[in-house]
Parts: sequence; structure tokens; C-alpha cells
Amino acid sequence: MIQKAVILSTGDELTTGRVIDTNSAAIAERLFAIGIEVAAILKVGDNKDQLLWALRQAQALADIVIGTGGLGPTSDDLTTEVVAEFLGRKLWQNEEVARGIQQRFKERGISWSSNTLKQAMFPDASTIISNPVGTAPGFHVPITPDKTLLWLSGVPQEMVAMLDQTVLPWIERQQGERGQTFSCTFKIHGITEGKLDEMLHPLHLENHARLSFRAHYPDLSLRLTVRTKSPDGSVLFETIKKEIRATLGKHIYAEGDTTLEEVIGNLLMAKQQTLALAESCTGGYISHRVTRVAGSSAYYYGGAVTYSNEAKIRFLDVRPETLEEHGAVSRETALEMSAGIQQRTGADVGLSVTGVAGPGGGSSAKPVGTVWVSIAQTGSHEAKLFRFAGDRERIILGTSQAALNWLRTSLLQ
Amino acid sequence: MIQKAVILSTGDELTTGRVIDTNSAAIAERLFAIGIEVAAILKVGDNKDQLLWALRQAQALADIVIGTGGLGPTSDDLTTEVVAEFLGRKLWQNEEVARGIQQRFKERGISWSSNTLKQAMFPDASTIISNPVGTAPGFHVPITPDKTLLWLSGVPQEMVAMLDQTVLPWIERQQGERGQTFSCTFKIHGITEGKLDEMLHPLHLENHARLSFRAHYPDLSLRLTVRTKSPDGSVLFETIKKEIRATLGKHIYAEGDTTLEEVIGNLLMAKQQTLALAESCTGGYISHRVTRVAGSSAYYYGGAVTYSNEAKIRFLDVRPETLEEHGAVSRETALEMSAGIQQRTGADVGLSVTGVAGPGGGSSAKPVGTVWVSIAQTGSHEAKLFRFAGDRERIILGTSQAALNWLRTSLLQ
Repeated sequence: MIQKAVILSTGDELTTGRVIDTNSAAIAERLFAIGIEVAAILKVGDNKDQLLWALRQAQALADIVIGTGGLGPTSDDLTTEVVAEFLGRKLWQNEEVARGIQQRFKERGISWSSNTLKQAMFPDASTIISNPVGTAPGFHVPITPDKTLLWLSGVPQEMVAMLDQTVLPWIERQQGERGQTFSCTFKIHGITEGKLDEMLHPLHLENHARLSFRAHYPDLSLRLTVRTKSPDGSVLFETIKKEIRATLGKHIYAEGDTTLEEVIGNLLMAKQQTLALAESCTGGYISHRVTRVAGSSAYYYGGAVTYSNEAKIRFLDVRPETLEEHGAVSRETALEMSAGIQQRTGADVGLSVTGVAGPGGGSSAKPVGTVWVSIAQTGSHEAKLFRFAGDRERIILGTSQAALNWLRTSLLQ
Repeated sequence: MIQKAVILSTGDELTTGRVIDTNSAAIAERLFAIGIEVAAILKVGDNKDQLLWALRQAQALADIVIGTGGLGPTSDDLTTEVVAEFLGRKLWQNEEVARGIQQRFKERGISWSSNTLKQAMFPDASTIISNPVGTAPGFHVPITPDKTLLWLSGVPQEMVAMLDQTVLPWIERQQGERGQTFSCTFKIHGITEGKLDEMLHPLHLENHARLSFRAHYPDLSLRLTVRTKSPDGSVLFETIKKEIRATLGKHIYAEGDTTLEEVIGNLLMAKQQTLALAESCTGGYISHRVTRVAGSSAYYYGGAVTYSNEAKIRFLDVRPETLEEHGAVSRETALEMSAGIQQRTGADVGLSVTGVAGPGGGSSAKPVGTVWVSIAQTGSHEAKLFRFAGDRERIILGTSQAALNWLRTSLLQ
């Protein structure tokens, strides 16, 4: 029975503060959801003595130790060697992994360096944890008969894939008769964390249900975890989900891992409509979000990044007088931009964005963070004013989210 | 003499993954800069036993322990009590702090709760660390004659203010005659981590110099740290930097925190040239990167995201016959796209990208990851073929990096 975990992150980039570690939070969140307590999170540099120290501490505290980092091919990647020493086991080359690495290098035409095969070495008695995203696989090795060590890549994207595809299913198998855990995530837009908390207050959830928030600008997500031994667990879970949906209504833009841009893709496909974008202050970021979705070419025509006034005139037929009278950041320009891209492309929906992303370019009438968004579609042509706070990056992120969310609600009508 | 530190973060929000801890990185970064090694970073929940465990470990490893969190007024804020127990010291109310808290509450009209004065209690022999931003001050207390414990608020903004205004000046005063630390980062493109390691091998650095890598796809960076008591420290540091520059040559695209898009902005400004982009498979991501840089409107005209063939014809004057004969992903189409955007916009440099980002759309002749990039500028009009591996996101990232890096080298000529 796995009750306590220790998370162990390694890398000089952590102990010198060069990198903000997101891995340990991602692991802790998932362990928490399945009822495993994280007794401690330990981080040490790429240093043998420190790593040995951390492994000893982790072993003393936990039933399961999940480590990340230091599996790469360079000389500062010490993990596998040190773990083997800690366990008193030899290192072996896994031939299948070695062949896989050689194959990848060949396919990409990357020149081979002698130390690359370090990534195919594992402590004796390890089970390989495959890495579906990168080169270095992880491993899984018993420390004692009832304690286990799992080690994953330190690259966040690779770590999460290995965790979700292999590690968590394995842990859940070990837990066996413990009852069931159900969990889901609601993605929220348009309210603050405080307001969300307030709206959910009347729900009065029982002990077996737990809500947790996570704000990662511009996203806000709400995670529901239900742990129960009841045979009606799934019914119970669905009931709570329904209550949450009823309470939050259209503030929920998606459930699970679905992104806002995927929701929009699905809506456009269902309506058999096409989209074209005209972006100024977001500089192509909304277009990037739309095209990040596989298959977006089915509904996305393309767009114009009209960063200069001249580009707005040439590519979108914005009238020079409009720019002169009202300025580039105005209701009038936003409306002409959305109409222009819609007409030029023949797309069903034209969305435009024009604003002041800063840090320069603001004025008292139009301070940094002032953004006009406009949507042109059959039978409607509107513009909305938004105001965002924060730095350039935050304003671009917030604008993209607000514009896509407005597009979502307008497609729902 | 302070040589080793342990950073200790507390809070259930850390061990349940609800919050990504930025405090420990902020502290580590500052300690590293003044030559103090962080032996470990420990995080535990709001739990007395775990906190006592962490304090014992920290004391054993470090000359200085810097802790954060758990200083608030609520029942789960245990820090001060547990630290007092750990040190075998009594708790005392600091009258000045108590009056300050009462004053603040009065001024803001916040209703008073009995446990608020918890924040004015400190272990005997503590020195108060004032909190210029929030309510709860920190403290500073000897563990043994040569070991010190400092505790700060867990609210990032408060923590940083306390650290910078009080803690770091105190540490530097303790250090007196100690040596100096020099460090810098090189940003690299065009070689693998393994290859980089191999290229640097012949450098034979002395003990006082340290190289560490960080791969954050598509970025690869190399950090050099030199710690020395020699009065010629800065000369030594510059010598090693020169050696690294000579060894890696144009693979280094920037030093310090400069991004590739900033390098390109600087090059374009220096040459007084403008840029326009025509993107297909990257869907606006390169444009987003270029415009992420504040002030990019000085050299960026704008661009077209021509996701459909029709858009390539309408916005870039790509000939329908070219698309028919060679396909959208071809040298010919890439060349016509870059010429088209350059001519349509009158920009000095036109850069185009067309490829298969996947997961669909690949063929045996043009598998997923096949990308053509073309640059049109006065006196030259070229196209290059790249092949990327990985998922859609990785291909888009890799393409943007390769395209911008080629743009960089072509602007250098």
C-alpha cells in the first residue's frame, strides 16, 4: 500500500534558481488527487553527495520516491550512476533502448556523440518507463520489497507524459482494493478565483469530494476529486459534476484537457464555418493558438498580422481616414479590420484585435492594456472594449483568451 | 563564513501541487550570485513533524537556513511555534510588532480576530526582519554559534522585499573578505546537448570554473560560473568566456537573457531594415515571437498566415500552377511566398515557412516534420529544407527557432 511519497528533483538549474521547477507541483497535484500524501519535496544540484543524501532521506520517509532530472547524455547528468550506487546495483545497457536512440539519431541525421548511449544504461532490476516525447526513458526499481523508486525525465513535457501514461496507472494498480478515485477538471473564464470560490460555496460537498483551484494565467481551472468505496461512486461523481455545471454555467468553457482553441475548432466544424483573423497587438498569437490544434486547416483560412497602419490598409482595406480620425486602437478600426479580413478571405467569421500591448504606446485616453476586439459574421458585426493589466506578455495572453472566449460564446448562439 | 545554505519552503499548497513555488528559485538565484551554494531545497506541508524533520536536515547540511511560509495568523500557520520548539526557545510577543499590526488593522478597518497577534510572537533571541509589503514580519535567530536560521513570509512579493532589503545585505556583511563569483549564460542553436558537451571537452577547466547546461526545447543554454579569490577574477572569467566563444563560434546566438527574437530585432534595427513574414505551418508563431519583443513595431511590418492554398494565392501571389506542380510544401512555394510577402509589403526582408506540422498531412516523400524556409532580401533569394521530429507543438517550436536562426545568420552577412 502506497501512502507516502517523496518527490526528488535534481539539477543545478534548480539550486541556482535558473529554472522555476514546475515538475514537483505537477507530480504533487496528481498524487494528492489519488490520495497519496507528499511527505516532502527535495531538490538538490547535480552533485553526487547531495543526490545520495536526498535518496537516503527519501527512502526513510516514503513508500514511493519519484525523482526527475539528470537522465541526459552530458557529463553533469549523474542520476543513473548515483541511483545504482545508492541501491548497490550494477548498471546495464538496455539494448532495445540503445537501438531506439540510434534509430532516432539516424532518422534526424544528427551526428552521433559517444556519450549518447549513457541514456540506455539502467540500474540492474529496473523496469523501463518509456518516454513517448523525448530520447531519455525513465526507470522504475525496487529499493526494498515495499519501497519503490521511479525516475523520470526532467523536461516538463516528457515528465508529464511519462507520469500520466505509465506511473499513475502503475500506482493505481498497486492501490488495488482501496476504493475508486474519480476526478475531472473544469476550465473557467470570466471570473476571478475569489468569485469562483464564492459561487461554489453553497455546494456543501461531502468529505469524499474535494475541489481545488489552480490559476495559471489566463487559465483558471477547478479540479473535482471524488474518492469513495461506494459501488455508486460514478453516479455520485456525475451528480456533483452536474451541480458544478449548473452553478458555473457558461463560465465553464471546457472540461478535461480540452483547450479553448479546441472548443472553437469543434464549434466551427459543427457549424461548418471558416475563420479568418486580423491581429494587431497580439502579433499572431491568436493565430498560433488556433493552428496549434491538429486539423485546424479544416476551418482556419488564415490571417493577417497587421502590425503597421500601412499593413492594416493594404491587407484589410482599413480606410486611412479611420486610422487618422480614431486611431489604430479604436472601435472603428477594429470593426473595419474584422470586416476587411472577412471580405478579403471569404471566411464565415472574421475576428480582429487591436490594442496597446505596451510597455510603450499608451496614453491617458488609451492606456497600456486597452484592447478592442471585433467579430464580423453573417448578420452581426460587433466590437467590444477590454482592459488588461500587467506586462506585455500578460496583455497578449489575456487578449487572446478574451477574444477566443467571446468567439466561443458568439458561436454558441 | 557562510558557505552552504538550505532553503526550506512550507505549505500544504506546495505538497499538494496547488501552487508552483517561485520562492525557492528566487532565493537560490540570489544566493548563487553571491557565491553561496544551495545544498538542498526542502519543501514540506503545514505539519509539525514534517517541519521538525526539515529543520533538523537543514541544520545538519547548512551554515544558513532560509525558510518561507507559515507565518500567517491562521491555525495552519505553524512555523514560529515549531521553530521555537526546535531551538528549545520560548516564544515572546514583540510589542512593537504587535502595535504595528493593530495600527494596520485600524487603518484599513479590518475586523480584528484574536489570533492575529500570533504574528507578533517570535522565538527568544530573534531579530525581527521587517516586512515592508505585508503584515507578518520574519525573524532571524542563531541555531548554534555559527549557524543561522532566517524565516520570511511565503507571499512571493513580501518574501522578495524582505530578502533584498534585509537578508542579502546581512549575508554580504558576514562574508567580508570572501572571493567573487562571476557567471554568464550562452544561448546555443544548431547542435545537440551531447555534441555541445563533446565540443567543450577539450577546454579543461580548472576547479573554480563550472559549466552547466540547460535544454528547454528549442533552446539550449550553457552557463559558466567562476568562483575565485584571485584579484584577477574578472580577467580569468573573460579569458574563459573568450575560449568558449572561440570554441562554439556562431552556434552561440546570444549571451545573457537575450532571446533569439531580440537578437533579430537588434540586427534589423542596426541595419535599418524591416521584416515581413509569410507563415504556413507555424500558423503565426514566428510572428508572435517577433512581436513579443517590446518595440518590434519599429522593424516589423506584419505578416500573413496563409494556412490555406487560397490564402497563399490571394495574399502572397503564389501561382496556382506552383501549388499544383510542386505542392504547398516545396522549395518553389516557399520561394514564391517569401518573394510575395516582400513585394506586397515593401519590407526589406521577407521570410516564409511552409511545412507539415502533423499529425496528419504527411506522405513518404514529405513526412511530418518536413519544412521549407525561404528568405528573400536584396540580392539574395534562397530556400532551405529542414526536418523536425516530435509532435505538432515541437515541430512548430523547432521550425520557429531554425527559421529565426537562419534569419540571424543571414542578417550577419
